Amino acid sequence: MSDKDVEKSYERSAERMRGDNKTFAADLTAKDYNDPSLHEDIHNSVSVDYDKIDKMPDMEEVHRWQREHIQKDDQSKEGYPLNVIIDPAMREMYQVVHDAGMTNVFDRFSQQQPTQCKFCIEGLSCQLCANGPCRISSKAPRGVCGVDAHTMVSRNFVYRHVTIGTSANIFHCHQAARTLKAAGEHPESGLKIRDPEKLKKYADMAGLNANKPINALAVDFADWVMNDIHAPYHIESKTVEAFAPTKRKELWRQLGLFPGGGYSEVAYAQTRCMTNFTSDPVEFLLNSVRLGVANEYQGLFLLDIIQEILMGTQEIAMKQQNMGLLKENMINVITNGHMPLLAHVAIDLASTDEWQQKAKAAGADGIQILGHVCEGQQLINYEGMHNRKGYGGQEGEWLSQEYLLATGVVDLFMFDYNCTVPTMPLFAKRFGTKLLSTHPVIKLQGTDTLDFVPEKMNEQAVKALDMAIEAFKQRKSENRKTYIPPHVSDCMVGFSTESVKKALGGSFKPLIEQIANGNIRGIATIVGCTTARYGQGGSNIFRITKGLIENNILVLSGGCTSSVMEYTGLTNPKAAEECGEGLKAVCKKLGIPPVLTYGACVDIGKMTHTAKELADALDVDTNKLPLVIGAPEYLEQKAVADACTAVALGWLVHVAPVPSITGSDVVVKTLTETTETLGLGKVVVEMDAEKTIRIYVDHIEKKRKELGLN
Amino acid sequence: MSDKDVEKSYERSAERMRGDNKTFAADLTAKDYNDPSLHEDIHNSVSVDYDKIDKMPDMEEVHRWQREHIQKDDQSKEGYPLNVIIDPAMREMYQVVHDAGMTNVFDRFSQQQPTQCKFCIEGLSCQLCANGPCRISSKAPRGVCGVDAHTMVSRNFVYRHVTIGTSANIFHCHQAARTLKAAGEHPESGLKIRDPEKLKKYADMAGLNANKPINALAVDFADWVMNDIHAPYHIESKTVEAFAPTKRKELWRQLGLFPGGGYSEVAYAQTRCMTNFTSDPVEFLLNSVRLGVANEYQGLFLLDIIQEILMGTQEIAMKQQNMGLLKENMINVITNGHMPLLAHVAIDLASTDEWQQKAKAAGADGIQILGHVCEGQQLINYEGMHNRKGYGGQEGEWLSQEYLLATGVVDLFMFDYNCTVPTMPLFAKRFGTKLLSTHPVIKLQGTDTLDFVPEKMNEQAVKALDMAIEAFKQRKSENRKTYIPPHVSDCMVGFSTESVKKALGGSFKPLIEQIANGNIRGIATIVGCTTARYGQGGSNIFRITKGLIENNILVLSGGCTSSVMEYTGLTNPKAAEECGEGLKAVCKKLGIPPVLTYGACVDIGKMTHTAKELADALDVDTNKLPLVIGAPEYLEQKAVADACTAVALGWLVHVAPVPSITGSDVVVKTLTETTETLGLGKVVVEMDAEKTIRIYVDHIEKKRKELGLN
Repeated sequence: MSDKDVEKSYERSAERMRGDNKTFAADLTAKDYNDPSLHEDIHNSVSVDYDKIDKMPDMEEVHRWQREHIQKDDQSKEGYPLNVIIDPAMREMYQVVHDAGMTNVFDRFSQQQPTQCKFCIEGLSCQLCANGPCRISSKAPRGVCGVDAHTMVSRNFVYRHVTIGTSANIFHCHQAARTLKAAGEHPESGLKIRDPEKLKKYADMAGLNANKPINALAVDFADWVMNDIHAPYHIESKTVEAFAPTKRKELWRQLGLFPGGGYSEVAYAQTRCMTNFTSDPVEFLLNSVRLGVANEYQGLFLLDIIQEILMGTQEIAMKQQNMGLLKENMINVITNGHMPLLAHVAIDLASTDEWQQKAKAAGADGIQILGHVCEGQQLINYEGMHNRKGYGGQEGEWLSQEYLLATGVVDLFMFDYNCTVPTMPLFAKRFGTKLLSTHPVIKLQGTDTLDFVPEKMNEQAVKALDMAIEAFKQRKSENRKTYIPPHVSDCMVGFSTESVKKALGGSFKPLIEQIANGNIRGIATIVGCTTARYGQGGSNIFRITKGLIENNILVLSGGCTSSVMEYTGLTNPKAAEECGEGLKAVCKKLGIPPVLTYGACVDIGKMTHTAKELADALDVDTNKLPLVIGAPEYLEQKAVADACTAVALGWLVHVAPVPSITGSDVVVKTLTETTETLGLGKVVVEMDAEKTIRIYVDHIEKKRKELGLN
Repeated sequence: MSDKDVEKSYERSAERMRGDNKTFAADLTAKDYNDPSLHEDIHNSVSVDYDKIDKMPDMEEVHRWQREHIQKDDQSKEGYPLNVIIDPAMREMYQVVHDAGMTNVFDRFSQQQPTQCKFCIEGLSCQLCANGPCRISSKAPRGVCGVDAHTMVSRNFVYRHVTIGTSANIFHCHQAARTLKAAGEHPESGLKIRDPEKLKKYADMAGLNANKPINALAVDFADWVMNDIHAPYHIESKTVEAFAPTKRKELWRQLGLFPGGGYSEVAYAQTRCMTNFTSDPVEFLLNSVRLGVANEYQGLFLLDIIQEILMGTQEIAMKQQNMGLLKENMINVITNGHMPLLAHVAIDLASTDEWQQKAKAAGADGIQILGHVCEGQQLINYEGMHNRKGYGGQEGEWLSQEYLLATGVVDLFMFDYNCTVPTMPLFAKRFGTKLLSTHPVIKLQGTDTLDFVPEKMNEQAVKALDMAIEAFKQRKSENRKTYIPPHVSDCMVGFSTESVKKALGGSFKPLIEQIANGNIRGIATIVGCTTARYGQGGSNIFRITKGLIENNILVLSGGCTSSVMEYTGLTNPKAAEECGEGLKAVCKKLGIPPVLTYGACVDIGKMTHTAKELADALDVDTNKLPLVIGAPEYLEQKAVADACTAVALGWLVHVAPVPSITGSDVVVKTLTETTETLGLGKVVVEMDAEKTIRIYVDHIEKKRKELGLN
């Protein structure tokens, strides 16, 4: 798109800003955001009258619209994507980007629709070897090597999804451990040990001498974690032994699902996926569950612990979210990804008077670092990040990052990890944003990358902030047009095992009482990503969550689902009003919302921790809890690995969209039925929100009965 | 297929056996194996007159036919597959299996042809996330996430091929090291340290105290190897440091290609392949080369060393190959795969009078273990396996395993590793073969699997042989029909760095002189697999090799290519007659064939070793050698990883079929041009045999010129 196109888009947005907000809001109610003709206009012409779609009204009206909207059950192809985008800021910026003819995630989804391949959708296509590619059909029931539908589907599942996701979570934990070690060895690195008691507690559980000086203990614990991650697959994992529930460990040993070192496990599984290697489909699926155990204890669980040691454990607080937090005359730094290790040092720096002065010297009102996707969901929750001058709050979910850059006010977009889309360099170039990768594991075309050197995080953070200042100066010198959608949500954040327990007066007993007396029927975690698919885009998450709280089910969120909860108002204590009577009473009494954001997708490790403590308090195995794990808009490989973790822990896992396993009835049956008969959990696939709510409610009621609860 | 169908097939084969061999041979010359009408007959009717295709004549006539056949340039769709199958035994058994209506690899290739997907062929299809599957086309130039053709193709290349292949080779080395450790710690295991001098030599290079008692040294060296494999990716690999050429190490450090621990490297690369992670295509390709370095020094190179320590280094000898080695009244055990660790203990056992007596007590003439695919190519080469009563010789390449079982005389098919096709359970059930996996890493449906416990190899080998005896008894009690194609090739085997040097009188000087004086223009390694594709099936390997030796290029083979060299007579010293004048003179003088089989695909580690010693003797970097690496029928992921190794070492690597990278000109250009400009090797893709020969010759002549040789 040309500069002119962008400017025109901005002008139209600016016009909307200047318009009468009330008139617009009334117009909106009449016309509705979902008017299909409106949508077609946008697609068919760039000369659409943008006044029609003007900016969103204030948040209360937005929330009302969102609630009316999902009543309509029309999140299908017709009217896409404005019928699925319920984030008010993203709605505006989608139109800016689309109108300017730039590539963007929702339009790309539309473009892909006519060509999506039936074989690939069902997992019945294999591209592993040079005799292929092969497809399974009734006419060709086996690939050239002899592989049948069951082997093909299950093998695809392992090497395309499970090993990738497991690697990524363990890799994250590995980097966190390196950082903890650097904190112990190099106090000059800018790294701090903010929760020494937690370090002592877990080092003690690991069998280490917790009475050592805290810096030496940090090194010992980090080494212990890294050694376990790097141990051979045939040596039982020490982290699993130290932290997993006792009854689960017995079961995993019986079933051959007790893993060794995670990287060796990944290589083992990847080896099995070779052409003409393992062909037993059940073996592939059980191997996935075994990887799920490693994914938890050498990944999610420990990376959460280590990051809390470094950044401080969660503390409940009111915070803000969405693009309205960007400020035209601030130096705006977005930190994106999943591993806020460098980011938290940068926030420390940016919070100093020295750096605020530097920003002012550059002509800005100041400098602020805002989190995006899961990186931000972690930052917003840590006690150590609370009330910092350099921290600006949370942006949105992964779908919104192209639209975020299109505001034109993002000076630096730094990222460490996944959920950084490949088009960022295009958007950065177009909108004057500097890109900076903070770990060589992620490299984008033509983009600066820092080595990952935890000992030098302070100086690396300096480099990042300097880049941001330079970018701001350039933005100002070029007098570039910008547009900031004015939406901001208030939300209560900071939930985790410890902070919930603290809020409850020091034990889970009050919560268990509320579950026992039926005010709270059970717990659902609504975790994972958002997708661009029809019926999704955040709207499926919102619909299901609404239904669950109406049924008195307490919801924990983690991942991009947390952003959805935030921009729909569900993490605001006011949302208590939307609950069933029992849950409403509990929320009001405690002053909490019915959706407790635990933060990021990687904070699933904290949810499993809470679940373990609840199970311990009840003296039952984890699979006995009135609990459902939901990923109603799961996107990628970590989500699949996390689902394997949940199956290992004995839980019902709901996923949508439909995973690419439907080509094999053996695979489907194994994952949706057989695993449960082994004492593991199982997977449920359901696309319809109403039916999904029913499944959750029924499962929770079944589990309540088994526990003898009414 | 019903029992009757099989019996009919056997009867026809038996009739052929009873027929007049000479008449048949004459008939053959007249009709030719390639008569398309014959082929169609077979496909269209099960009542085809099998006398027409009768059995092959004696080996000399087979070899004559093979040579005439490849002159014809008709290995295309028309006449497939009998126009590509040049193994006389497989030709017969293909017809038996096909005629009986059983699934088999060549027929499955035909079945897949109408549906092979253009997007998958070019690497332009992605199935990683739930927004997909996506395909890249001119109408949809990016996937939903924003991925373009270049990222998609390069990322597919990494997680579908390179990480899988690298994992598998390093995994193999890891298991070999575990076995060496068990040999040191548990002499009762049946394991022996057959080459203690080699252990001392490499332990010394590793910086270990080589003066320790040999058993303790075995443990130290094994631990040293395993520790390196399991080290973090950010710690420079000790095995690479100890064994790689000095100039290469410098280059790899400059380019960021010096790897750390292999499993950690695999997980690192796999992590990068996540959705919305690394998107720089060049980065993916350089990462592949880095994995190629780990693939060599933590995989191929060291697994070869360790296996030689355990089984004895190669020794040149005349041996035999092909299905004619099966004996109707012997207990026939096939050992298949790539890791003959348990197999070599079983051969030790089967070579004792005790076990031969047990076989006789069961009514057999004896018991013999025959190798198949790469497992066998290793066994046939090791000095420690030479002249053992219980060793029966080598069967064929991976394509022939279904046909091998169809003989009905295989009592036990044991396998440890890849190249065991998923249909083995079908064939085993139908033909009364017992299947036994000797490592849990490979599991087939409904098949027995031994735990991998090196300390207990002796007792595991007992179990395997007992199974074979039982299976033989059952075969005899059921009086099942069998048919053994009567073909046997004589071949010279046992080549490796040490045995070649020994044959040359203790140094590579005589070889270098022959290269310098131009009798030998250069060296080509023809390695890897065979495919079922049109124009391949072994015939492409044969054509290219013939052309190379005619051009005075010495050929080293490894993998299923070695079987092709064996059944085409090219590993027979008589093949000297087929060479150009210079190479002919050298071969005749030394009494060697022009194709030196180094054994298995994993013995590429020995070829790189030879190449390093040649480069050292010439005092040049490895990329200066007049050497080409060819994989004219590469099939799977280990072959891709090995190609990455060759690129790392600076060599031209020819591959066919066309890898699934053609959807990105950036990827193609990077691998076929750019890498060479960095001092690395490069890839050449060429399907035509004549053009391939020209490419090899030109490259070798270019390298000769650079070295100042005429």
